Amino acid sequence: MSEAIDDAALDALFREARTHNAWIDRETPDELLRRAYDLAKMAPTSANCQPMRVIFVRSEAEKKKLEPCLMEGNREKTMKAPATAIIGYDVEFFEELPRLFPHTDARSWFAGKPKAAETNAFRNGSLQGAYLLLACRAVGLDCGPMSGFDNAKVDEAFFKGTTIKSNFLMNIGYGDPSVLHDRSPRPAFDDFCKIV
Amino acid sequence: MSEAIDDAALDALFREARTHNAWIDRETPDELLRRAYDLAKMAPTSANCQPMRVIFVRSEAEKKKLEPCLMEGNREKTMKAPATAIIGYDVEFFEELPRLFPHTDARSWFAGKPKAAETNAFRNGSLQGAYLLLACRAVGLDCGPMSGFDNAKVDEAFFKGTTIKSNFLMNIGYGDPSVLHDRSPRPAFDDFCKIV
Repeated sequence: MSEAIDDAALDALFREARTHNAWIDRETPDELLRRAYDLAKMAPTSANCQPMRVIFVRSEAEKKKLEPCLMEGNREKTMKAPATAIIGYDVEFFEELPRLFPHTDARSWFAGKPKAAETNAFRNGSLQGAYLLLACRAVGLDCGPMSGFDNAKVDEAFFKGTTIKSNFLMNIGYGDPSVLHDRSPRPAFDDFCKIV
Repeated sequence: MSEAIDDAALDALFREARTHNAWIDRETPDELLRRAYDLAKMAPTSANCQPMRVIFVRSEAEKKKLEPCLMEGNREKTMKAPATAIIGYDVEFFEELPRLFPHTDARSWFAGKPKAAETNAFRNGSLQGAYLLLACRAVGLDCGPMSGFDNAKVDEAFFKGTTIKSNFLMNIGYGDPSVLHDRSPRPAFDDFCKIV
């Protein structure tokens, strides 16, 4: 039974944090990316399947490989971001289940069932992408997640010959709050939720 | 530019929090479910599309509707949980975009493109499910997310006549830590991530 976290943490994770498109000149150490993943991996996935696979693109050469895969409007901000995470999921995640979920034969739930495996990988890989985003914020980083890119091109450039598919991209660094627009409107609880 | 959150908050959200299957006798007010959603909705979705739709099942009558949809092993714990969130996504989320993303015609990116809409709704609805899970923890609640149920049966029982599909379920309340098993092993950063 946990206690609620304090207002400053709620602000940093949810209420005041924003999606960033411009970055200040401040070092973003690899160590913080590692810390964020090591937090995110603690959060739950179905049968601890952990299907997310991440390439953190930092070098200029690898950024250049990514650039033509992006929609025009996402290119400049991504080239300037200290890091861009390619968040993917392994459709054969089940090969890791004997290690990750050792107390039962969970591999057999998915092996030879590509549709179930794909759905599970996409769902749980997306959950993990959200955990990673909030974990980045938790270690003080800002994020700029994006779907505006060609998944097939990213898969060809970064995941060729593997069973990994790209899901979404996320720029990471320290955002420049001076150029943020107003936040888009949020729905009320009763717009999209009900209690029955 | 945010500051990192403190160790106690990291523990409550990621490091010490666990998936719970048993619940202590402590009131779980509707108000906390509302607070959790009102935090989760602040986190990013693509074009602020907010495709997640949630039914928080609390009454015995609605729990009884849910019971036959569950895998046998998930029934007892779900019937005993103070609340069970049915986390769904609206494949016609784009009808809300003129309100949620008013500064451009984002509706046209998805209207009449059911495959793109479904993928976007499933990805972003899953992100939002993860935000909601961590937001529940942030307000002091424990969660028990589950994929072990018949999606078609849940859709028939709770979303009939709508464009909403079930994604996953999540029991919510105050967990009983005395009956937890050991945590499943987590991967190392270098198992599933690289920096290039």
